[in-house]
Amino acid sequence: MEIAALRARHPDHWMRATAIRALTLDAVAAANSGHSGMPMGMADVATVLFSKHLKFDPKAPRWPDRDRFILSAGHGSMLIYSLLYLTGYQDVTLDQIKNFRQWGAITAGHPEYGHVAGVETTTGPLGQGISNAVGFAMAEEHLRARWGAKVQDHYTYVIAGDGCLMEGVSQEAIGIAGRHKLSRLIVLWDNNDITIDGKVSLSDVTDQKARFAASGWDVFECDGHDPDDIDRAITAAKASAGPAMIACKTHIAIGHAAQDTSKGHGALTDKTQLQAAKDAYGWPGAAFEVPKDVKAWWESLGAKGAKARADWEIRLATLSAAKQAEFARIFAGEPAPKLGAAIRAVKKAAVEAPAKLATRSASEKVLAAVNPVMTETFAGSADLTGSNNTKTSDLGMFDVSSRGGRYMYWGIREHGMAAAMNGMALHGGVRPYSGTFMAFTDYARPSMRLSALMGLPVVYVMTHDSIGLGEDGPTHQPVEHLAISRATPNTLVFRPADLVEVAECWELALSQTGTPSVLALSRQNLAAVRTAHTNQNLSAKGAYVLAEATGKRRVILIATGSEVEIALKAREALEAEGIGTRVVSMPSMELFAAQDEAYRKKVLPAGPVRVAIEAGVRQGWDRWLLGERGRDGKADFVGMSSFGASAPYERLYKEFGITAEAAVAKAKALL
Amino acid sequence: MEIAALRARHPDHWMRATAIRALTLDAVAAANSGHSGMPMGMADVATVLFSKHLKFDPKAPRWPDRDRFILSAGHGSMLIYSLLYLTGYQDVTLDQIKNFRQWGAITAGHPEYGHVAGVETTTGPLGQGISNAVGFAMAEEHLRARWGAKVQDHYTYVIAGDGCLMEGVSQEAIGIAGRHKLSRLIVLWDNNDITIDGKVSLSDVTDQKARFAASGWDVFECDGHDPDDIDRAITAAKASAGPAMIACKTHIAIGHAAQDTSKGHGALTDKTQLQAAKDAYGWPGAAFEVPKDVKAWWESLGAKGAKARADWEIRLATLSAAKQAEFARIFAGEPAPKLGAAIRAVKKAAVEAPAKLATRSASEKVLAAVNPVMTETFAGSADLTGSNNTKTSDLGMFDVSSRGGRYMYWGIREHGMAAAMNGMALHGGVRPYSGTFMAFTDYARPSMRLSALMGLPVVYVMTHDSIGLGEDGPTHQPVEHLAISRATPNTLVFRPADLVEVAECWELALSQTGTPSVLALSRQNLAAVRTAHTNQNLSAKGAYVLAEATGKRRVILIATGSEVEIALKAREALEAEGIGTRVVSMPSMELFAAQDEAYRKKVLPAGPVRVAIEAGVRQGWDRWLLGERGRDGKADFVGMSSFGASAPYERLYKEFGITAEAAVAKAKALL
Repeated sequence: MEIAALRARHPDHWMRATAIRALTLDAVAAANSGHSGMPMGMADVATVLFSKHLKFDPKAPRWPDRDRFILSAGHGSMLIYSLLYLTGYQDVTLDQIKNFRQWGAITAGHPEYGHVAGVETTTGPLGQGISNAVGFAMAEEHLRARWGAKVQDHYTYVIAGDGCLMEGVSQEAIGIAGRHKLSRLIVLWDNNDITIDGKVSLSDVTDQKARFAASGWDVFECDGHDPDDIDRAITAAKASAGPAMIACKTHIAIGHAAQDTSKGHGALTDKTQLQAAKDAYGWPGAAFEVPKDVKAWWESLGAKGAKARADWEIRLATLSAAKQAEFARIFAGEPAPKLGAAIRAVKKAAVEAPAKLATRSASEKVLAAVNPVMTETFAGSADLTGSNNTKTSDLGMFDVSSRGGRYMYWGIREHGMAAAMNGMALHGGVRPYSGTFMAFTDYARPSMRLSALMGLPVVYVMTHDSIGLGEDGPTHQPVEHLAISRATPNTLVFRPADLVEVAECWELALSQTGTPSVLALSRQNLAAVRTAHTNQNLSAKGAYVLAEATGKRRVILIATGSEVEIALKAREALEAEGIGTRVVSMPSMELFAAQDEAYRKKVLPAGPVRVAIEAGVRQGWDRWLLGERGRDGKADFVGMSSFGASAPYERLYKEFGITAEAAVAKAKALL
Repeated sequence: MEIAALRARHPDHWMRATAIRALTLDAVAAANSGHSGMPMGMADVATVLFSKHLKFDPKAPRWPDRDRFILSAGHGSMLIYSLLYLTGYQDVTLDQIKNFRQWGAITAGHPEYGHVAGVETTTGPLGQGISNAVGFAMAEEHLRARWGAKVQDHYTYVIAGDGCLMEGVSQEAIGIAGRHKLSRLIVLWDNNDITIDGKVSLSDVTDQKARFAASGWDVFECDGHDPDDIDRAITAAKASAGPAMIACKTHIAIGHAAQDTSKGHGALTDKTQLQAAKDAYGWPGAAFEVPKDVKAWWESLGAKGAKARADWEIRLATLSAAKQAEFARIFAGEPAPKLGAAIRAVKKAAVEAPAKLATRSASEKVLAAVNPVMTETFAGSADLTGSNNTKTSDLGMFDVSSRGGRYMYWGIREHGMAAAMNGMALHGGVRPYSGTFMAFTDYARPSMRLSALMGLPVVYVMTHDSIGLGEDGPTHQPVEHLAISRATPNTLVFRPADLVEVAECWELALSQTGTPSVLALSRQNLAAVRTAHTNQNLSAKGAYVLAEATGKRRVILIATGSEVEIALKAREALEAEGIGTRVVSMPSMELFAAQDEAYRKKVLPAGPVRVAIEAGVRQGWDRWLLGERGRDGKADFVGMSSFGASAPYERLYKEFGITAEAAVAKAKALL
């Protein structure tokens, strides 16, 4: 690649794009870590995108009708930090660039949502950004259909590398986008032929253009260092009827000694080579210095966006006051005002006509009451609609010809579903929930972790939550999955016991603004355990006394979900023998842990022996069994210590010893 | 679909294939659960495959040179159970078919490896079987290159459905197989246009043939109900130069009222409809009855395989006795006899020249000693070779022109890598280990769970095992991942502290025959903590006293991996204040849990306060802090309770309070 020729052909563009390269080289050298090559290689594409296409206003980074720009190849974080600094996003100061990857800086190693305005999603784990983008584009289509193009009318642009495209989740995303003709989604593939281990050809021979085309995408290509060609390709992609992929042929670490090598992927910190690259670029000045005219040009780009945003404000103001308030509410992610009343009505009706009901069916009943009053919900299932009970009659189908529909057949794509839900939540204006079997939490796990890390109030409806699913056997029976979600910071795990608790847990999940929820729901029918109505949400404190001991309290049985019924039976047996036994229902360990010590001690006083009952592994329970500092009491656990088996569920509960009899025996052994 | 026409065209074939359909209908009806439609739809394909192509011997189901048949669409388990019963696999009796999905039966809801000979891998979680198959085919290519076609020369056949192809992991598998031209791999796609939620078109428009072709596969198609056409396609696929995919156009639940509908996917139990289908088939007799001539034909198929197997035994016998013994050992999965000596030599050298070393680098040193003496190891990395330190100089590259090479660039495909490793372990004759960052355990998780469920001694080399990785930030910093792997049944988690422990843990991992191992290794350099040589493997008991208290033992510090060094520093400080402090290194909680109570009490006696130090979440630690039944002592934990951050690692340890000072303060607060 002749740098001199590139400079000569488009001298102004060259210097503007090279500002990204120079800042990247300087920041990575200062941090002595990071990834130089990708921002250097994609600088031309980004410059054309930001100057000629992207609708953005650095003064209003959260403006709901901005175009979204997603750096799926998150390791190239200096690309986005450079762009945000150059165009004048207030928080991204030169000091932040100089403190790249340091403690307290918003310029983290990988772009982190919430740390810095202008970063639309946290990326780094490969394949996530491109898959989030599908959710962004779906949200835009959906909101445009429901609110009109005057308030929602924008594009989603993604820069993705070979790593993103090799991760399996990208195929799920490609499949969803192609099926739903998400024409506002444009993926710019950094086609540089390099991965960390060496040339892409070491590990892949996939014809990416053919692969995308096979799933209904429109495919384009361009010379990723020729601004005119890049502009032509993006213009064509915007006009395409389907989602568009542009293969941008680039040179990683262009102009550096490490150009076109896997070394160029990483941190280029050699000072001599760094200066040689800058010399080749014709880049003047000292480290972190951008020529005034270049900086001024970048800053001028915001003006177009500011105008677009001002026009948008005027259009938004034409909506009724009520509509404007609703728009603000859904973008703020606040629950609907009528949610509480709807939940209380379900609870009251449940107590008036108690029935044996699987909690997944209970969930459907709750959703039937919630979805009409909280119309920003957007639901789906990974090909288990009839099993996850996520679909209610009023939702309508989201489809090419019905973008206002609120239900999505995700296909057999748990990971893509979770990533897209993250994208929808990040976009704002919709509140996504979707289901799969709890065991397949595993498939969605990388995106579920990112829901937690980003603080997105996505709801995961995980049905068939134990060996209680029966005949499908151990591959489908979660055993360790409650522990897995509970081990994850900033994640609420709910395991409700009956319709009343399901209603309470849904209310809590839908009231979150910064935390995802996992609802663990049973396949099998369960007895109602909450028999008296109260408007109070008893699940809100995570655990509460469901049944009190008669006389002296000698045993506390703690249980969740389907095992609460078993705890109540065990209590009956113990009480019949004169052993005072309290039953604590604990639908959410995290919410209980968040209570003050006085409440926790009230529910779980020291003294009585404790037996927990849950059809999962013990890990995570000891804190409640033994007390955080020990010495609280003697304790034992009734649950699983192995994988499950294939048989009718009643038999499995018996064979694995998750029974009232076992709980009674363990309690008595401790007394 | 005119059943009558099909019957008339190939009357003998029809009855043979319909035996599968009839058994499926009867077994699902008896179980009142299961999946009828897929075995009914693919019965013709399976019949042609088993009768004209598959090399198998029901009398020797573990014969190393058999063709492998993988039912990736595992919900259609009655297809494989029918085939095994019909062809005369000894364990699959008619009683087992009648007890489909019942407690104690080997005919579990989904096919489970180890339960029934003839089931090559556990399937059900979609996309796994097809991805395992890539490992099977790689193992065959590799062993054929190293041992010669006279002892390894077979095909891997897969039946996969739309669910398998929609799961992202399938793309990773397709990419690997295409890149490596695995021409002995043949995927039979059950192209029936139906998923659980309805028509495939509801969720996908992918042109699967174009998609496979884009990754270098040879693509064929056939009428999945025409035996001649099926035979033609399989014959062509076997002759192809690349991996082959055959799109088999089929009708799900063919001949039943539910044909071509999503209802047909599930359990067809209506007795009238069942009988109507059998009448249409022209199927005689009562439930579970197969006409004698049909059964005899199926049983006769084994004869060809028995001959092939006898010929193979003769060829095997031409190898030297030593070679034969080696062949038997590697297929039995036993460690090499010289493994122990190699490990002890590393340990001795480590103690003689102690050095600060990251445990990932220590791992490379150990592997450099192990790989030459245990030549069945097969290594790789998901595009992090230089970071995971999994490659040693003697391995050579596995590639199209060097099938004997033992190192694989998996690409950015953690999930596909794990699934393929499962396949290699299942195939036998190779012992796979591969690496990625520990945080990306998440991506590989569905296959890691199956390693555990199937009892496969795969080794996962998970480097960058905490916030100790520093600047890459929270997306790359595992926090909950030790807890996740520890929560999983039948999984050994090792977190060694220095080169000596790394050597011991590798010895333990490579000595397993029925359990996968996760090696958690540091990015950052660590001080040597084992300063005296012993031939004994101290890590084998999971935890041991690394440094004893001086005088009265008042504190026990328990730590793993990179935090053992911190525990030793904390001990020094406590001892300096006259507080007797023991340090316990706990490289594996699972192995410690497996010791008898006497040993556990010796290492962790009741009385002293306990403080555990690990740069991960507390979940999983309480058992060792508080004792399994409580009252063991006061205890506290130094670790993480949130996600990490992006900064140099020394700063992170300080900011998150994982320091000797914090451990000292917590211990003293408890005294």
